[in-house]
Amino acid sequence: MLTSQSQDFNKWYNEVVLAADLAEYAPVKGCMIIKPYGYAIWENIQKILDAEIKKMGVKNVYFPLFIPERFLTKEAEHIEGFAPQVAWVTQGGNKKLEERLAVRPTSETIICDAFKNWIQSYRDLPLKINQWVNIVRWEMRPRLFLRTLEFLWQEGHTAHATNKEADKMAIDALNMYRDFVENWLGIYCISGKKTEAEKFAGTLYTLSIESLMKDGKALQMGTSHNLGQNFAKAFNIKFLDKKGEPSYVWQTSWGVSTRLIGGLIMAHGDDKGLILPPKIAPYQTIIIPIPPVGGQGWTNNKERGKIKKYISEIEKILSDKEIRFNTDWRQQTPGWKFNDWELRGIPLRIEIGPKEVKGRKITYVLRDDSKKEIISFKQFEGRIKEFLEIFQKRLLEKSKRFTQNHIYQVKSFSEFKEIIENEGGFIKAFWCGNDKCEKQIQEETKATIRCILKSRAGKCIKCGQKSKFEVLFAKAY
Amino acid sequence: MLTSQSQDFNKWYNEVVLAADLAEYAPVKGCMIIKPYGYAIWENIQKILDAEIKKMGVKNVYFPLFIPERFLTKEAEHIEGFAPQVAWVTQGGNKKLEERLAVRPTSETIICDAFKNWIQSYRDLPLKINQWVNIVRWEMRPRLFLRTLEFLWQEGHTAHATNKEADKMAIDALNMYRDFVENWLGIYCISGKKTEAEKFAGTLYTLSIESLMKDGKALQMGTSHNLGQNFAKAFNIKFLDKKGEPSYVWQTSWGVSTRLIGGLIMAHGDDKGLILPPKIAPYQTIIIPIPPVGGQGWTNNKERGKIKKYISEIEKILSDKEIRFNTDWRQQTPGWKFNDWELRGIPLRIEIGPKEVKGRKITYVLRDDSKKEIISFKQFEGRIKEFLEIFQKRLLEKSKRFTQNHIYQVKSFSEFKEIIENEGGFIKAFWCGNDKCEKQIQEETKATIRCILKSRAGKCIKCGQKSKFEVLFAKAY
Repeated sequence: MLTSQSQDFNKWYNEVVLAADLAEYAPVKGCMIIKPYGYAIWENIQKILDAEIKKMGVKNVYFPLFIPERFLTKEAEHIEGFAPQVAWVTQGGNKKLEERLAVRPTSETIICDAFKNWIQSYRDLPLKINQWVNIVRWEMRPRLFLRTLEFLWQEGHTAHATNKEADKMAIDALNMYRDFVENWLGIYCISGKKTEAEKFAGTLYTLSIESLMKDGKALQMGTSHNLGQNFAKAFNIKFLDKKGEPSYVWQTSWGVSTRLIGGLIMAHGDDKGLILPPKIAPYQTIIIPIPPVGGQGWTNNKERGKIKKYISEIEKILSDKEIRFNTDWRQQTPGWKFNDWELRGIPLRIEIGPKEVKGRKITYVLRDDSKKEIISFKQFEGRIKEFLEIFQKRLLEKSKRFTQNHIYQVKSFSEFKEIIENEGGFIKAFWCGNDKCEKQIQEETKATIRCILKSRAGKCIKCGQKSKFEVLFAKAY
Repeated sequence: MLTSQSQDFNKWYNEVVLAADLAEYAPVKGCMIIKPYGYAIWENIQKILDAEIKKMGVKNVYFPLFIPERFLTKEAEHIEGFAPQVAWVTQGGNKKLEERLAVRPTSETIICDAFKNWIQSYRDLPLKINQWVNIVRWEMRPRLFLRTLEFLWQEGHTAHATNKEADKMAIDALNMYRDFVENWLGIYCISGKKTEAEKFAGTLYTLSIESLMKDGKALQMGTSHNLGQNFAKAFNIKFLDKKGEPSYVWQTSWGVSTRLIGGLIMAHGDDKGLILPPKIAPYQTIIIPIPPVGGQGWTNNKERGKIKKYISEIEKILSDKEIRFNTDWRQQTPGWKFNDWELRGIPLRIEIGPKEVKGRKITYVLRDDSKKEIISFKQFEGRIKEFLEIFQKRLLEKSKRFTQNHIYQVKSFSEFKEIIENEGGFIKAFWCGNDKCEKQIQEETKATIRCILKSRAGKCIKCGQKSKFEVLFAKAY
């Protein structure tokens, strides 16, 4: 039995990850082993996103894992942000290296070094590349999928002739992520700009999508950066424009990681375990054969044969409709199997026993409401796809409702503190734009500004001065 | 202009890799940047092989990049083989580490550590996993795709109850590779067992597929290992069999890497550049618009409009038939474009100018013979797929013929030396099984035993003693 969410959400999370066989800790502290079931989810994420990325005219590449130390230090803010998190290779093949090599914490610097050579003229722009790779950032408080020393991600990197184009690219990438997270993962997102304190090291600005987890904490699901000309100047990436004038390029970078799987778990899961959206679930449907009641289970071969035959008819329909399914013939009780597949979050369960065979019926249960429904074989054939679509939509609606019910507009800082302490969720409030207030709020409440919603006049929730922005606060992972 | 193959094959190779925009060296010596065109080939390789691997009941996973030093040293032969090639992380996040971490040179050890926990009973067997990851081996003489400090590969790892099953798995994996290399990459393979001196460190035996490159040197295209119980004993991976008796598992591992792209270049390429098999080419067809002769090129908009319209009809057919194609509208001469796409190895080129539009004809050229053919639009529609299939088959036939023409049966060691020196290719000869002879032959000729063909009586080509095996020698990459 899992710990319940209300009892201890963090404990529930760790138990679900392990029990549903998604991942486990590796012998090196903070590293994880992504197991077949967890990796199948990542493969589905990759497949969809990779196609979306290519639709934006982006091409995949592979840049090296190792980055010379002198590259990382070229952009001052960048190295300041990443230095405490870098793993260093100092020995190669029994020899001490003359220059330390960083195991990539992100690839802007090494990609900029190549862009410098690849870009000469406006004809070479825009240049849009992406890579799916492993990333290492030394983490002291690891959590599976959410914060691990090594994780998998995709990082897109583009160079443009104008800031306007870079702006558009950064927004297009963010919109692609939001569309994916909402319509494939079924998780509602709020998007906006990060504050100076929260932005990516070395960037002009950072955009992010933020989602609310079931414990009321926010999770940053993806980010997109307009790097401005900061890296172009540090790495001397110039192009000749149409008039033959040299100019620095404008760049963006954007990424999502295996952290999305953590979001999937915490945004949908319940006390029974995972709940996976059909579009991303490794199996969309599980078929459980039910032995005759009071019989000797599968020792009655004739009964078993009939059930098997009926199930094969169902399997054929699922195959024809390209629904990913599995049939669980393991030697366990149906109850044990129900629990096991509920834990793994399969959207739709089908139960087939003697009653179903006799009446040519199908008993099915959707993962989130656990209501048993009985329909005819014909109805099932006509409606199975619809069931999965309904379930997919329902997850997003629930996530949206949950998020909207947990956005609080506060009038005073004491109210702010009370809500953050007791309710969690997002707090919509005014902020003067001063990082002193931002820092003080974080120190007193552990809440950070997740994103700036818009420029709007009001009074800062902390200092009471004239505010510049309406922002969203939350405690975050 | 490329250096010709006959003039300097190595130089030709390096020039093709760079000029065809497949890859380039990275700032860290021995590392490579795989550029969009090269990576698109790798993505096609991955897509096909991944599906084949899954058909064998293997599931994808992800194991960490970092392996504790104590793991690597557990299997004695294994560490001896890999120690000189390991890159070590000694610092993480500004702190010196207590134990050095190896950047994976291969993942047997860390996977065995997990198998120890995952496997308890015969019910947990066979266990079959695979991962697509980056690998680091410190290389002193790097060559793009062939030998780089970091490369990409897939590594399959399985555990079985019996040696017989492990044997079968190792052979199935090798056969899968051979089928892929021959039928998708169009490169003929010879397969067999490696000698003790050439096998993978820590394994019972290694199987490999070997192909002949156009310069007469062999390239190992893929390997499959039966690890026996060596790792199981070192890592204590035991299972209870059906009788409840504890027993060590039998294991296999097998892999292919980005080196396959090097093979693709050297097995098919010619003095004009790459020749890519249609099944793996990023673009299978390139359409080149030809401006009116003697006219002002594309300044004649009416003529251009007609050509564009006709090309769009052709594009529709290619799309409908799911043929990967590109149309080159760049502002360059047709001749420049012909050279550029020949360099990139596109299987089929289509030329469309005023003549083709007027007569509703198609002019096409296959990459390998450069013969211009003119056919009607209707014929083209009916036969385009066939052209690509013919081309695909032709590449394998050529590769097979070339290989078979360069397998020499020798009677004396002087003949051996003469052929290896002047002709290259494979030498089929008898070998006594003694590693002293193997070593001496290597020292004198630089040829190594690529694989053991079969047990067969004869006289060792070196010492003249009774031979155990017929083997295949070659100089190799």
